[in-house]
Amino acid sequence: MSSRTLYSVVPAGGSGTRLWPLSRANHPKFLHALAHPRQSILQATVARLAPLSSPDRMFVVTGVAHAAAVARQVPDLPEENLLVEPSPRDSCAAIGLAAAVIARRDPDAIMGSFAADHLVRQPGAFQNAIRVAIEGARRGLLMTVGIKPTHPETGYGYLRMGEDLSDGIMQVAEFKEKPTADVAAEYLRSGQYLWNASMFVWRVEVFLAELARQRPDLHAGLTAIAEAWGTPEQDRVLGEIWPTLQRISVDHAVMEGAADVGKVATVPGDFGWTDLGDFHTLGEILAEDEFGGTDDAGNVVMADPDTVVLHDTVDSVVVAQSGRLIATLGLRDAIVVDTPDAVLVCNRKQAQEVKAVVDELKRRGDSHAHWL
Amino acid sequence: MSSRTLYSVVPAGGSGTRLWPLSRANHPKFLHALAHPRQSILQATVARLAPLSSPDRMFVVTGVAHAAAVARQVPDLPEENLLVEPSPRDSCAAIGLAAAVIARRDPDAIMGSFAADHLVRQPGAFQNAIRVAIEGARRGLLMTVGIKPTHPETGYGYLRMGEDLSDGIMQVAEFKEKPTADVAAEYLRSGQYLWNASMFVWRVEVFLAELARQRPDLHAGLTAIAEAWGTPEQDRVLGEIWPTLQRISVDHAVMEGAADVGKVATVPGDFGWTDLGDFHTLGEILAEDEFGGTDDAGNVVMADPDTVVLHDTVDSVVVAQSGRLIATLGLRDAIVVDTPDAVLVCNRKQAQEVKAVVDELKRRGDSHAHWL
Repeated sequence: MSSRTLYSVVPAGGSGTRLWPLSRANHPKFLHALAHPRQSILQATVARLAPLSSPDRMFVVTGVAHAAAVARQVPDLPEENLLVEPSPRDSCAAIGLAAAVIARRDPDAIMGSFAADHLVRQPGAFQNAIRVAIEGARRGLLMTVGIKPTHPETGYGYLRMGEDLSDGIMQVAEFKEKPTADVAAEYLRSGQYLWNASMFVWRVEVFLAELARQRPDLHAGLTAIAEAWGTPEQDRVLGEIWPTLQRISVDHAVMEGAADVGKVATVPGDFGWTDLGDFHTLGEILAEDEFGGTDDAGNVVMADPDTVVLHDTVDSVVVAQSGRLIATLGLRDAIVVDTPDAVLVCNRKQAQEVKAVVDELKRRGDSHAHWL
Repeated sequence: MSSRTLYSVVPAGGSGTRLWPLSRANHPKFLHALAHPRQSILQATVARLAPLSSPDRMFVVTGVAHAAAVARQVPDLPEENLLVEPSPRDSCAAIGLAAAVIARRDPDAIMGSFAADHLVRQPGAFQNAIRVAIEGARRGLLMTVGIKPTHPETGYGYLRMGEDLSDGIMQVAEFKEKPTADVAAEYLRSGQYLWNASMFVWRVEVFLAELARQRPDLHAGLTAIAEAWGTPEQDRVLGEIWPTLQRISVDHAVMEGAADVGKVATVPGDFGWTDLGDFHTLGEILAEDEFGGTDDAGNVVMADPDTVVLHDTVDSVVVAQSGRLIATLGLRDAIVVDTPDAVLVCNRKQAQEVKAVVDELKRRGDSHAHWL
């Protein structure tokens, strides 16, 4: 296998509600340049995969609302490799569609799936981990790349490692849901757990066989769609079958059950990964020197400095996009996000709860929908 | 004296920097409707004086920048009673000009001076206090109206009361600058101190005689201007003399020295006065039932409720004018002020320090002047 034979699939879904009001339904997180002056997170994801996948083996799966933006942000993506979901059916349908389409093109394909909205600070180390995962996939394993935890995070799921399968590959004994703080601390202490970063590498035929075993309806539907893909029947079949597919994550649908029968393994990775899930995390990333660093008071400012006046303000995150002046006074551990039509002011400790604001806007209905 | 013979003078100056970004140099505090849905603070001030002063005895002194806005906000004000200062020369020049002009019109006049940007919640009680002050002025005293303190405020000057002069009038033994917190607490305990609300009532000839005794140059300049007032010479004389007048407050220039010689007295007033000086104070006012009250979490919102989402936010003040959505999460004792071109986020305990932001904008020079 030469160095660029991996089929890379980038599911570009989810609106990143914990990054509202920066991330919106019509301009989600992955389209934003958050930790880079010009490159969006999606673009960085694709660039990071380029050493592993030739352009014709790069795929993006996204919703109808973002197809145009993705096509423009990734101009080298072949048109036929932009897989547009008619409606969101969760990650098993998205990733399974890509697997089925790729399998029709190349039954021996090894494919990887990598979320569009994560950040990796050491792309070289990431690529090395994926190369190890590819070796595991060759052995017939459903590979994940787990992240060595650096703190007792409660916002991620975890993988419990089992037997050492040699060559840097560890069996995955069990998938764990997001833990409580106490449990997360115990996970960290034990050294037996990795963060589940939803990165998968497998032979498409192995994945599809597990899907057929565990979720035969989903497998049948996706196979039918893939058979029509690229034919005049594509739209009709997609329109008929897609809405009937089960909404379920690939973890629940396939990986957990596959782990139970010893078919899942992981490469413990350490390459500066983060899901950039909320403004607190974004602030921590931007605080690193390579992303701009902090001021003397520990503040991170992602804005034209001419538009920001921080007075007696420490350890805070200011993101400003509207050109308006942002002045703060007497703040500590605060988040201020200013966009042309909405402002968020948040305690940094509660950055994970921003979704509650989005939920409230949804609850208020049509009159508030333009803020979503 | 009939009931509307007082000459009322309303100095409308100062930009209210502690209320930035709501209050701006070109749209200062007194022009805003802060505690009323439609009436500005200036309009409320004039309305409160109407039972004491007939329209021809109402005067407003303001700067060139605000003459048009004042003329429009107070349409009943006679044109000749709008006294426009060519440049700011502090309160003694502003009030002294009015006194000198009124003295030319009516040498026996009793005049009162009342800041344009204060709030009085019980106008009837205020009017009764002024009627007592008018009686004191008749006796030849320079009267103030002092406010019975409700808490150890460090943001105001104080009056120390002396002898009881009967009929509700107390001698003023001494003017005191803004105290430290300890001193303010002692003032409150003693019961001998009132807040200096810069409300004055006097016979113009008594005031002008004291001005002549203590500040002969200021008296001479103002007298020369008043003699030319309303004549073809007005602009020339004003242009020549005004810039030479001493910049000094009426307290320092006249009242402190007059108190030393026993000529100052006060009416202790209790009519719901506040100078509405900062957003914390504004929040306290708006929290009162008559001004809208708080939500269940003690928050005060001065905005279209459709544009505000408060989540896990308590005892905070939100002022929104731009129509943008304001969302807060995990805030306590915070102030959020949103205007079309600037946002302030402030700890409520530091509301007095907002001036520091304005100072920083001034320091940054021309590029930031449009935010002042």
